[in-house]
Amino acid sequence: MRVSRPVVHPVEVPPPAAAAGAVAVEVGGAPAAHVENAQPRGVRMKDPPGAPGTPGGLGLRLSQAFFAATALAVMASTDDFPSVSAFCYLVVAVILQCLWSLSLAIVDIYALLVKRSLRHPQAVCIFTIGDGITGTLTLGAACASAGITVLIGNDLNICANNHCASFETATAMAFISWFALAPSCVLNFWSMASS
Amino acid sequence: MRVSRPVVHPVEVPPPAAAAGAVAVEVGGAPAAHVENAQPRGVRMKDPPGAPGTPGGLGLRLSQAFFAATALAVMASTDDFPSVSAFCYLVVAVILQCLWSLSLAIVDIYALLVKRSLRHPQAVCIFTIGDGITGTLTLGAACASAGITVLIGNDLNICANNHCASFETATAMAFISWFALAPSCVLNFWSMASS
Repeated sequence: MRVSRPVVHPVEVPPPAAAAGAVAVEVGGAPAAHVENAQPRGVRMKDPPGAPGTPGGLGLRLSQAFFAATALAVMASTDDFPSVSAFCYLVVAVILQCLWSLSLAIVDIYALLVKRSLRHPQAVCIFTIGDGITGTLTLGAACASAGITVLIGNDLNICANNHCASFETATAMAFISWFALAPSCVLNFWSMASS
Repeated sequence: MRVSRPVVHPVEVPPPAAAAGAVAVEVGGAPAAHVENAQPRGVRMKDPPGAPGTPGGLGLRLSQAFFAATALAVMASTDDFPSVSAFCYLVVAVILQCLWSLSLAIVDIYALLVKRSLRHPQAVCIFTIGDGITGTLTLGAACASAGITVLIGNDLNICANNHCASFETATAMAFISWFALAPSCVLNFWSMASS
């Protein structure tokens, strides 16, 4: 039977206090280097700030939900938004964004309370796809509303007959919500790709 | 001097044909399993279809440039697009998209001709950031133009005085260009994160 040849030649007498399975080497009077205490290769890094299940991630989710809810409230406060399709689309998109971000905020709160990591591959995949879809919808709605707002305010100069300030505020809030979503989406996608 | 204790107790006679540094174990007559011949962990996969430097990647880049150029040509063929800010923004965005995609198409052609891989981390990082910026701009411009087009065509019904068909075509081409860009961006980001 051939066996592996250790680098340090073993002595006949077994070491007195070596635990079973532990590998300890002491050379030239140096303190024992316990291999089982060394950092294993491929160990997972700590969750970066802003990742799901961290206080930063919870803050991002709450920011997204807050700004989306603000956009919804400001747009809904105008009585003529249903006459423009883009504004209706904005309302739908920010409702979806708000629901998604609130749901993930609840998941983050749960993970923080029970001190569990949310780096499960399937969970991260679902978060990434959801962030991608809601982010694209919110950005599209914000851009469409911005196009209409600029048309009304700058190109046609008919702000006197419209709630330009409310439209602009709602559009800005939707953009800020998207800016708060982008780091979550990028972090989740990065986590999914590097796992 | 404490030394490591191997799991299999070493024999006194060294193995006869073990190469220096090689670890060979033969148990129960089974052929020797040479560890140095095993597949190393973390070995790079072949470039996936659509990645930079592949025929699929070149096809995606040419598609992006073609649809962006078509959107530009259709929008520029109307004489009243400068009166709407969103359409001017669309023209700028698709010009940028076309230039970016054509540049990367040339890089892809070069890589294909000299059979070089484009998986260098810095190159992939530049491709990802460029794709992200141009993709966001193109999507935003397409959504803003779509908002205006729907306002003119559906909400106000003033297509008789405007080039609705051209606006719709240009918007659709910009969206298709963005759809062709999305796989490149996702693949580059995935490649950057997993490298």
